[in-house]
Amino acid sequence: MKRWNGWGDESVEFALSAEALAFLRQGIGSGKPVADAAFGQACAQIAESRLPAHRLIDTAPEVRLRNALGQSLPDWLRLRYGVIGTAPDGVAYPESAQDVRDLIDYAQQYGVALIPQGGGTSVAGHLTAPAGAPSLTVNMTRMRQLLYLDTESQLATFGAGVLGPDLEAQLRARGYTLGHFPQSFEYSTLGGWVATRSSGQQSLCYGRIEQMFRGGSVETPLGTLHLPTFPASAAGPDLREMVLGSEGRLGILTEATVRVTPAPAYEAFHAVFFPDWAAAETAVRQIVQAGLALSMLRLSNALETTTMLALAGHKKLISLLEGYLSLRGCKEGKCMLMIGVSGRKSLVRAALREALVLTSPHGGVHVGRYMGEKWKQNRFRNVYLRNAAWSHGYAIDTVETAVDWPRVEVMMRAVEGAAVAALGQFGEQVHTYTHLSHLYAQGASVYTTFVYRLAGEYESDLARWKALKNAASMAIVSNGGTISHQHGVGADHAPYLAAEKGRLGMSSLRALFEHLDPQGIMNPGKLLP
Amino acid sequence: MKRWNGWGDESVEFALSAEALAFLRQGIGSGKPVADAAFGQACAQIAESRLPAHRLIDTAPEVRLRNALGQSLPDWLRLRYGVIGTAPDGVAYPESAQDVRDLIDYAQQYGVALIPQGGGTSVAGHLTAPAGAPSLTVNMTRMRQLLYLDTESQLATFGAGVLGPDLEAQLRARGYTLGHFPQSFEYSTLGGWVATRSSGQQSLCYGRIEQMFRGGSVETPLGTLHLPTFPASAAGPDLREMVLGSEGRLGILTEATVRVTPAPAYEAFHAVFFPDWAAAETAVRQIVQAGLALSMLRLSNALETTTMLALAGHKKLISLLEGYLSLRGCKEGKCMLMIGVSGRKSLVRAALREALVLTSPHGGVHVGRYMGEKWKQNRFRNVYLRNAAWSHGYAIDTVETAVDWPRVEVMMRAVEGAAVAALGQFGEQVHTYTHLSHLYAQGASVYTTFVYRLAGEYESDLARWKALKNAASMAIVSNGGTISHQHGVGADHAPYLAAEKGRLGMSSLRALFEHLDPQGIMNPGKLLP
Repeated sequence: MKRWNGWGDESVEFALSAEALAFLRQGIGSGKPVADAAFGQACAQIAESRLPAHRLIDTAPEVRLRNALGQSLPDWLRLRYGVIGTAPDGVAYPESAQDVRDLIDYAQQYGVALIPQGGGTSVAGHLTAPAGAPSLTVNMTRMRQLLYLDTESQLATFGAGVLGPDLEAQLRARGYTLGHFPQSFEYSTLGGWVATRSSGQQSLCYGRIEQMFRGGSVETPLGTLHLPTFPASAAGPDLREMVLGSEGRLGILTEATVRVTPAPAYEAFHAVFFPDWAAAETAVRQIVQAGLALSMLRLSNALETTTMLALAGHKKLISLLEGYLSLRGCKEGKCMLMIGVSGRKSLVRAALREALVLTSPHGGVHVGRYMGEKWKQNRFRNVYLRNAAWSHGYAIDTVETAVDWPRVEVMMRAVEGAAVAALGQFGEQVHTYTHLSHLYAQGASVYTTFVYRLAGEYESDLARWKALKNAASMAIVSNGGTISHQHGVGADHAPYLAAEKGRLGMSSLRALFEHLDPQGIMNPGKLLP
Repeated sequence: MKRWNGWGDESVEFALSAEALAFLRQGIGSGKPVADAAFGQACAQIAESRLPAHRLIDTAPEVRLRNALGQSLPDWLRLRYGVIGTAPDGVAYPESAQDVRDLIDYAQQYGVALIPQGGGTSVAGHLTAPAGAPSLTVNMTRMRQLLYLDTESQLATFGAGVLGPDLEAQLRARGYTLGHFPQSFEYSTLGGWVATRSSGQQSLCYGRIEQMFRGGSVETPLGTLHLPTFPASAAGPDLREMVLGSEGRLGILTEATVRVTPAPAYEAFHAVFFPDWAAAETAVRQIVQAGLALSMLRLSNALETTTMLALAGHKKLISLLEGYLSLRGCKEGKCMLMIGVSGRKSLVRAALREALVLTSPHGGVHVGRYMGEKWKQNRFRNVYLRNAAWSHGYAIDTVETAVDWPRVEVMMRAVEGAAVAALGQFGEQVHTYTHLSHLYAQGASVYTTFVYRLAGEYESDLARWKALKNAASMAIVSNGGTISHQHGVGADHAPYLAAEKGRLGMSSLRALFEHLDPQGIMNPGKLLP
């Protein structure tokens, strides 16, 4: 069963090794484990539902609690400390577009706020029930069928609530893949990916969800918005782009047609080390601008590299690897690049060779597939580390942005520095490291992780997080980054959105949402503050 | 000097050979040349300007006539027959964003409709002055500088009025290219490409303008909308996508930042013939879905192939070629595929080889570069054929759409058939042929040309065109195509737009435009009917 107050399935544990814990202790001090609130204790806080009865709505407190929050750190704090606050007045599980239509009509009739939910993996506060009006979470995960596969056009139509693994399983059975693998893959849904402009780990070959989403159906308060599929069009602004990233503010996506491709015959992940950041950044920029047929480039900075090596286990092997790297000039300060290839073997191996050639002048040392296979094994497992860290008294949070190349290193330093300063105010250290998770000819996403000690008390931990989040977010916007490259806006990033959208951009989005949702019942408070 | 009533520069003539004329005569009968109205005669029809004076506005009738219309067939009919109708009350030539701002403020103050214009190459009625309120054409072509080149991020910022050749010249001088080559390249502008979602002949490697347009500035009646550049973002709907295809309805783009790439070291265009359409279509679908590093795929149907061979000149050479093709199984019904490659020689030649391998099982016969080089020489010249054809009493018009693969052939037959039926009502034949101009894994654009005889009188020729246009457009929408893949909507396609956008899509766009342009002064009547 899915954890109610943490990541993933209750049966999956991903422990921190003694070495990893020692590494953390040395960096930021000993964590003190905190006792979690019990499920029943949290449930008892759920207020009586204010919703008129409806055939699709469940108002049981347990169900409402399990659908009340996402995976952001403040969501965790509320669940772990048992400070639930607002929760939706009910949860509906529609099974058809007509069900969704009925729920929207019901919500309009009774003035109920609707919160669309996929797998509940938001890390930006998309799922929080608003204070005031009654609210209803619309859990889409029962709409999960592959409805149509057009192999000639390589298009697949799914119910929008399909979870990542179910989507891939249905496609793989027919020889196809979508290729969208965000770290949340196991618990996130196609509709959620579209609504938050998600990006997967292999977006370099498969594209972001924006490139995959070819059409679909959205139920809005004003009626159904049907988005037909065309290979391309010059017929006015692209309506799909208004739905992508709309975070439930204009309606609920019920069906989505996505571009699929034949499942790759061959896939491999290789690691290359560089002596320092400057060399590594130049190399990856040249590789991505060469337009080679790679499926992933992921560059860790020095501290992330050290951290990954410390967490990798196989201490002896890693020590041998580090010895070898040192001989080849990659000592302290070395940075690890992961290169993925997916596709026809001859084609992608040629691309890999070309990429490796480009690494050489920058001191790149190719160490083969071991670290890459390690990464692949754990690609959806690393999120479980949040559970393990918490149990030892540590919080893990991340922020991410994207900037053009001249600002990439500046941004990385600024975000890490802001975190250090913010937690320094509390007399705390932060173990902070960064990787470029998605590379583009134009620039890169900058994905920074923070590990720091829990205070052990809700208000104090919320204060720490707020200080950290605000400092990191201000560093992002003041250095010209977008407030999110892949997590979306939700409630947590909404205060920073105007910095990039501008006054007119914000008012235009508002005008659009108000047109389609005149009563303002669709996920109020998210995206636009 | 630019022709006032036809395509291109007055000094450039592109004659129809005797063979080509005989070919046309045989197909659709002899054309009767029509006497053109004189420039002075047309000028005399321009009514007195109703505009209050402004430092940037020229109200001379000659200037207004030269900026009154585009290149659609009804535009031509008005100019050729001297039936000018409405014309703008003035033409402004802004040289800065502040100038544009001033003009918008002026227009709001005096209730003047603004018609943004780039190179005036619209073939969909984007530039027509509305009846009623006074109107002002804002000619953007003086804003044409390369303002900034960021080689690290491969981004270039231009004044939005820069013409294709000026843009490429400024980039090539620095070793870069945009790679956007619509057939209108010589006279169309960056701003026009963005405003109409243009696509160039080599979009297969360089992308459509949607992929190139990374940011910029738009002056709207409500103020300036600034679009920052990010490599990617999950921060809500993408505002650039509201500007792309907005056709002047929400403001005027003053600056655009576009993705550029190093100019290709090597470029070549090869021709492959197939025995018939079915074989050819299957082959190109497999090639495009293989994701090879090609820069162009362009497949002509049988009659377009015959027409291109008839127009190619070098009768003897073509006859030898046809003899050879016939021996290899490509006889009547053969279809020509043009394959372009651009980039590093080793890389793109490998891609070409792979593509050719995929043509073999479908009876593809590679004939080398001769036809490809011919095509390349004339890539921006074929539009001049409209002048030549007109002088012999023939009209040339085109329609284009895009559909998913299962509908490509159906669409081609439907559009051609609709044209034959429409002109049949007038007892006229139409020489109609089609190519797939842009190929996608999902489907293709379907680009159909019509050559037919002029009636020799304005009203009759307008009636012929209207019947043809409506029949072709209805064929497009009733077969699930977009009303435009690359020409935009303008006034001519506006009646068909609701078929794809739907009621809610149309009202959403209207809400957005009304928000940014509450007085409705921005290019009224275009895009939305």
